Amino acid sequence: MPQKKTKSITILDSTLRDGAQGEGISFSVQDKIHIVEALDDLGISLIEAGNPGSNPKDLEFFQYAQKMALKNAAIAAFGATRRKGITPQEDMQVQSLLSANTQNVVIFGKAWDFQVTEILKATLDENLAMIGETAAFLVSEGRKVHFDSEHFFDAWFANKEYTLKTLEAAVKNGVSSLVLCDTKGGTMPLMVLQAVKEVTEYFDKWCEKNHREPVQIGIHTHNDSGLAVANSLMAVEAGATQIQGTLLGFGERTGNANLSTIMADLELKLGYKCLPEGKIRQLTSAVRRVAEISNVNLENGMPYVGTNAFAHKAGMHIDAVTKNPAAYEHVEPESVGNDRVFLLSEVAGRSMIIEKIRKFDSSINKNSPIVADIVKQVKQMEHEGYQFEGADGSFELLVRKMIGKYQPFFKLHYYKTIGEKPCVESTLCSFAQLKIEVENQIEITAGEGDGPVHALDIALRKALERFYPNVRDIRLTDYKVRVLDSKSATAAKVRVLIESSDGVDSWITVGVSADIMEASWFALVDSFEYKLIKDVEKRFKKYL
Amino acid sequence: MPQKKTKSITILDSTLRDGAQGEGISFSVQDKIHIVEALDDLGISLIEAGNPGSNPKDLEFFQYAQKMALKNAAIAAFGATRRKGITPQEDMQVQSLLSANTQNVVIFGKAWDFQVTEILKATLDENLAMIGETAAFLVSEGRKVHFDSEHFFDAWFANKEYTLKTLEAAVKNGVSSLVLCDTKGGTMPLMVLQAVKEVTEYFDKWCEKNHREPVQIGIHTHNDSGLAVANSLMAVEAGATQIQGTLLGFGERTGNANLSTIMADLELKLGYKCLPEGKIRQLTSAVRRVAEISNVNLENGMPYVGTNAFAHKAGMHIDAVTKNPAAYEHVEPESVGNDRVFLLSEVAGRSMIIEKIRKFDSSINKNSPIVADIVKQVKQMEHEGYQFEGADGSFELLVRKMIGKYQPFFKLHYYKTIGEKPCVESTLCSFAQLKIEVENQIEITAGEGDGPVHALDIALRKALERFYPNVRDIRLTDYKVRVLDSKSATAAKVRVLIESSDGVDSWITVGVSADIMEASWFALVDSFEYKLIKDVEKRFKKYL
Repeated sequence: MPQKKTKSITILDSTLRDGAQGEGISFSVQDKIHIVEALDDLGISLIEAGNPGSNPKDLEFFQYAQKMALKNAAIAAFGATRRKGITPQEDMQVQSLLSANTQNVVIFGKAWDFQVTEILKATLDENLAMIGETAAFLVSEGRKVHFDSEHFFDAWFANKEYTLKTLEAAVKNGVSSLVLCDTKGGTMPLMVLQAVKEVTEYFDKWCEKNHREPVQIGIHTHNDSGLAVANSLMAVEAGATQIQGTLLGFGERTGNANLSTIMADLELKLGYKCLPEGKIRQLTSAVRRVAEISNVNLENGMPYVGTNAFAHKAGMHIDAVTKNPAAYEHVEPESVGNDRVFLLSEVAGRSMIIEKIRKFDSSINKNSPIVADIVKQVKQMEHEGYQFEGADGSFELLVRKMIGKYQPFFKLHYYKTIGEKPCVESTLCSFAQLKIEVENQIEITAGEGDGPVHALDIALRKALERFYPNVRDIRLTDYKVRVLDSKSATAAKVRVLIESSDGVDSWITVGVSADIMEASWFALVDSFEYKLIKDVEKRFKKYL
Repeated sequence: MPQKKTKSITILDSTLRDGAQGEGISFSVQDKIHIVEALDDLGISLIEAGNPGSNPKDLEFFQYAQKMALKNAAIAAFGATRRKGITPQEDMQVQSLLSANTQNVVIFGKAWDFQVTEILKATLDENLAMIGETAAFLVSEGRKVHFDSEHFFDAWFANKEYTLKTLEAAVKNGVSSLVLCDTKGGTMPLMVLQAVKEVTEYFDKWCEKNHREPVQIGIHTHNDSGLAVANSLMAVEAGATQIQGTLLGFGERTGNANLSTIMADLELKLGYKCLPEGKIRQLTSAVRRVAEISNVNLENGMPYVGTNAFAHKAGMHIDAVTKNPAAYEHVEPESVGNDRVFLLSEVAGRSMIIEKIRKFDSSINKNSPIVADIVKQVKQMEHEGYQFEGADGSFELLVRKMIGKYQPFFKLHYYKTIGEKPCVESTLCSFAQLKIEVENQIEITAGEGDGPVHALDIALRKALERFYPNVRDIRLTDYKVRVLDSKSATAAKVRVLIESSDGVDSWITVGVSADIMEASWFALVDSFEYKLIKDVEKRFKKYL
């Protein structure tokens, strides 16, 4: 069993550089700045932000980044060793690394003789010169240089002797760290363990013999074999003290090493330090913040930080966790700032539905007949395509309806929506008209919008405002469409999820129908009613 | 470096049992049968299919399963050791395991003293009796029994002595395998390596001393620490020869061990055999088939089998892979039945766009000025929310339009869609009316549907059929909606992807708009036009 250690690990996040190679990822300058802020808040120590010479967007970012007041992080520029046949001084790409004005610079170079001769079409000696001269030049300009040894593991097992020469070329010329890259993501954990151990021992001795301070060994892995996290841990166990990856695992192909998982494993399981004291508890919120900025859906099943990481569905597990969370949880959800969730589902026991109901009616217990009715109703609706797992707002309304703690705030007479092309009215091509009734008063109104759902939202809001002015506070903050049974193509059922906020609370509601408009209508009505009920509760609490 | 071995590994797939605990997973009896067929085709040797006593659906499945003619797989029933205080014969749950009529039976029991006393509320001795008696009873009934040692790793590092007693209770009573479960998914790889090694050595000796044939050691991991794959590999390196998991990694919380990744690692990297000769080449199609049946979206970044597993986006990588795939691919995509993909994106180089264009105009080369125009247009459209990564149909049309190899098949005068609630016409509440023109002939028609998009699809199809009867062959096989910038709520832009088929080919088209109807219209028109162009090409090839 590995000993607990308190060694500090340097974390380099490459979300803005290697992460930007992921499918569907594209950052604006503003996005990049927000991600730097999020990573800095979490306490990441190095942020690799791109190549200032590669495009104007990156240059603009680096100019702005110099003025940012960061609490924990340093920004690093990323580039390559010089091109063959010229000096570093003559290489615009190397020069551009200086223009970023960062203390830390990461350069990558070739370790694998196959890559040098086949892809780069250079001699093996020229490659050593490219590494050494580029490092020397950047060091002479006062930079702290990290050397990414591309394809290190393939190189190591193919030609250990030449690979060591490339690393020595970097160390001799003053780099601060050697980062061993599993560029293709194909290396197995015990091979990583062995190789990193040999390199660490070799350079510990080398540095001692050559009277220079020890060079830091780093690891950079990809997930092509599903082993990026494990390989990073192996490297640390073998002596590496820098880990490169991306906070959410973004990256080309199958992604880079997921730093959120690695940091939690290292801090909570293996006793290393990656972040300032206590910061690991902000892991989940930091990850979700970066997901938001990047506009990607966080995988529900992501270790530690996913919405399902502490979600229990099997009835037996729920019962056990209710007795003692350690029964089916490897760490406390709070230790990474996540929450325990009991999923509603066919196989779930009642105890969890009761837990949910009790939040607003403590008189209900396991034997209340209403519990069986609600379970039955939930199962029926799940069968039709509803999922209350993510829709607490609609679930609360459903329970209220079942236990009689509900009355509708309005009655719909009808709505009609019209969409057309070409548009008669500039860019707004959708119209909605509706008629509602509140306490015998009729309101007929209409709205126009970008699409029919938007128009319907606007019309309903207008109609309700006359009776309930506080619907003005409601902002719809998220709108998601999931096509269920997408094989039925345009006749498929859809599930619409709407997230709303009034600046204080936020809630999620759901609607299902083969008609996207009707599904949206259900979710919209639930959202407005949920807000109105909350306000009644707050305002008239004393009378109730 | 680990030696290449040719040891055979028994794969037990638990998609139907542990996998069904995953969020959003719910199998009908028919689904279960289709999944068994898919796993059997792939060559999985054991399929854990559920508990015949837990619900009527599982019982119905086992009755059907007995009659299935499987080529490679055996079905296993899954249950628990007997309840405390009764005999196995008296325990309905144990009896139901026999009713499944399977040769293989998996039972789980407690290894961890904490679980026995705190959750089960039984004595430590009673737990040993529960394990031993249940095993003995099932063995006496002619079953091959696999013992899942729940919470094995927690147990092992907490109380090794008692844990060994639980395993001995199973082995003494004739079980064929001991499966070591990391139930909470919290164990680190080197701990797995060490523990499995000790258990394997212990029972090798024990069986020899007690003159019984060796007991198989198995591993069952969960991904809570992002290590399920690595921990399975560690166990194999330490002597385990059975791996339990789910083909796609489905499972409670963060999921079970992903067998597709593990089998590829073992067969392609470590030299073990998991599947019949050559079957690993069907891995990708088997995984996608199970994803289809389960109605889940396969993660694009899943190792080996995801659509991005061999997708290259960085221009430099694409150039290198074009020269030599081994530069950035750890295995050949064909070795697991997957494909290489060059993603279209902001950072991609031209060489990949040229590769795509050349498919239908071989005269175009790197220096053709049109290439720059197309790159610019693609970037502009990606900026607006288009993604051609998954939409080859629309991409081909775009290129055709840019190089002048296109003329429209019809002209839209207008469409109007109407949605309403309540519905006037039974359950179809949406109507579409449109006017198109083909070679100076006008067609005005209308359709009704489940939703406005469906109605529009029907109306357009009707209108076109008069001029192009072969649009009748087009079936829309998939319809996806992705809300872009979902923070703009109901006014957000949406991207619609439509997959179509004519029974021979299938193609994907895309449309983007803030109006879901317009986005669907763009994708729909592209789909119809793509088909019509293909037919013209086929029919009039000789004239062109």
